[in-house]
Amino acid sequence: MPLIVTGTIGIDTIYTPDAVAEKVLGGSCTYFAAAASFFTQVRLVAAAGGDFHDDYRAVFAKFPNVCVEGLEIRPASKTFAWGGKYFDNWNQRETLFTELGVLAEHPPKIPAAYQDSKYIFLANSHPTVQLELLRAFPKRVVSVLDTMNLWIDTAREELRAVMREIDGLIINDEEARMLTDIRNPITAGKKIIAEMGPMFVVIKKGEHGCILVHDEGVAMLPAYPVESVIDPTGAGDSFAGGMMGHLAAAHSKDVNISMASIQQALAHGTVIASFTIESFSLDRLARLTKDEVAKRYTDFQEMVRV
Amino acid sequence: MPLIVTGTIGIDTIYTPDAVAEKVLGGSCTYFAAAASFFTQVRLVAAAGGDFHDDYRAVFAKFPNVCVEGLEIRPASKTFAWGGKYFDNWNQRETLFTELGVLAEHPPKIPAAYQDSKYIFLANSHPTVQLELLRAFPKRVVSVLDTMNLWIDTAREELRAVMREIDGLIINDEEARMLTDIRNPITAGKKIIAEMGPMFVVIKKGEHGCILVHDEGVAMLPAYPVESVIDPTGAGDSFAGGMMGHLAAAHSKDVNISMASIQQALAHGTVIASFTIESFSLDRLARLTKDEVAKRYTDFQEMVRV
Repeated sequence: MPLIVTGTIGIDTIYTPDAVAEKVLGGSCTYFAAAASFFTQVRLVAAAGGDFHDDYRAVFAKFPNVCVEGLEIRPASKTFAWGGKYFDNWNQRETLFTELGVLAEHPPKIPAAYQDSKYIFLANSHPTVQLELLRAFPKRVVSVLDTMNLWIDTAREELRAVMREIDGLIINDEEARMLTDIRNPITAGKKIIAEMGPMFVVIKKGEHGCILVHDEGVAMLPAYPVESVIDPTGAGDSFAGGMMGHLAAAHSKDVNISMASIQQALAHGTVIASFTIESFSLDRLARLTKDEVAKRYTDFQEMVRV
Repeated sequence: MPLIVTGTIGIDTIYTPDAVAEKVLGGSCTYFAAAASFFTQVRLVAAAGGDFHDDYRAVFAKFPNVCVEGLEIRPASKTFAWGGKYFDNWNQRETLFTELGVLAEHPPKIPAAYQDSKYIFLANSHPTVQLELLRAFPKRVVSVLDTMNLWIDTAREELRAVMREIDGLIINDEEARMLTDIRNPITAGKKIIAEMGPMFVVIKKGEHGCILVHDEGVAMLPAYPVESVIDPTGAGDSFAGGMMGHLAAAHSKDVNISMASIQQALAHGTVIASFTIESFSLDRLARLTKDEVAKRYTDFQEMVRV
């Protein structure tokens, strides 16, 4: 089932306690698409600037399931650039710089061939842009939204408007609290479902895993235990990509977003994200095999067996 | 299989953001024994003072599987008393006062009838006391140790001595880090197993669940999602009690502490602990039924299904 992602291409500079990566390929769309491509074909809609050189493009070529027809290059503009620094505990990071570049311009154009897309993932961007993009896919079956603290603070009404039209929301625990004024993530998730539109909410807790609040019930998953974290950047987007990729691949007439199918999809998202953080940028995903994914998935099943 | 726990009886005064409980029954032994009693008979070895009045004793009477023959009352002494305050996020607590009472005296005597105990849980106390108690059970099959930051700081050599003789260790993530100087809990757990004696380590993460590092592999479990936390006191001891109770009840000749049996036991500990925090003291456990435990266990299985 065609899956589409709209979001950012980024050129990241990342400082970790152990190393530095300068001007590497990043962005929500990038991580999402690479992760989802292990399960299904992914269509990418994003913009980049004249500084998006061939080496970056070559990275996408390593993921044959990612269609980059919707990658719009604007030669006179600059690609979104982000600099971040992680501290010893890996859970805290500081943004060193943000250069919006193409993100400050109009949204990218959606190729005509993409308009029949059924599975839609709206990676983090301004909720008004997200709503416009969402409505560009009238044949959508499942739509899921990511957002961030900035929009909860500064564009809450616009965010609430797009939330009314989507099926699922992916946020972190702090964002769930901001959105509801409720600390308990389960209670917060239930309020979102009862009052704000989505049928399910995935609450990400980083190294502590995730919680699913669904109108059928509640589920939890720990993260896969990675001992050698190199760079956590992109973990959340890879997690979302693995989840949506698995959902789209498992599409059927009736159970697209049943509790059980999302639980399964989240486990696959967890596994893909665990590979992402084993290197900078897409290095690990670019040399990841389906066999490795299947093996780690089986290991993960054993690890969380009750 | 006979399970024994040595630890503290406490008289707790607890402030939460919503309520206060004054001079209620607590202590590591108490929570542990009550929790374990849902799965097996538990023998308790602990001391209390002349202020341990009939109302406290009556609480134990609500758990017919708890044998209190080893509860030693010292009329001229005072029971260990602890005062604590929880803050809005429930994860942080401040100790308001600690009155050692009987804990500053000699360890309790072990009844002759207890000397054949096979499953031993050494709840938190000075490691020298723990070692002496451990050696009082020559027929032990499985012994598990709890400890705390204080002993890691002030009695590390004595702690290492008792660790060399036990099968399992239960600690929290911060204690795992203190013990090994390693932040990653998996890596820390592996170091403990490789170098310090235990065959398995359970690392507690509070509301984020637990990690098992075992010489057969690694496992994780989320916590059961409780929306209405009244008082987290005793969660860790109940968790350990549920785990050990289930292990002792499931005793067999070969697989007492296999990876799979501990995983199952941890899930039962998780379920019991989730009830404990729904009230102050042992209020919830005292009216808990085996059917409720079985129901929540089944729900939990569904929630973590991969």
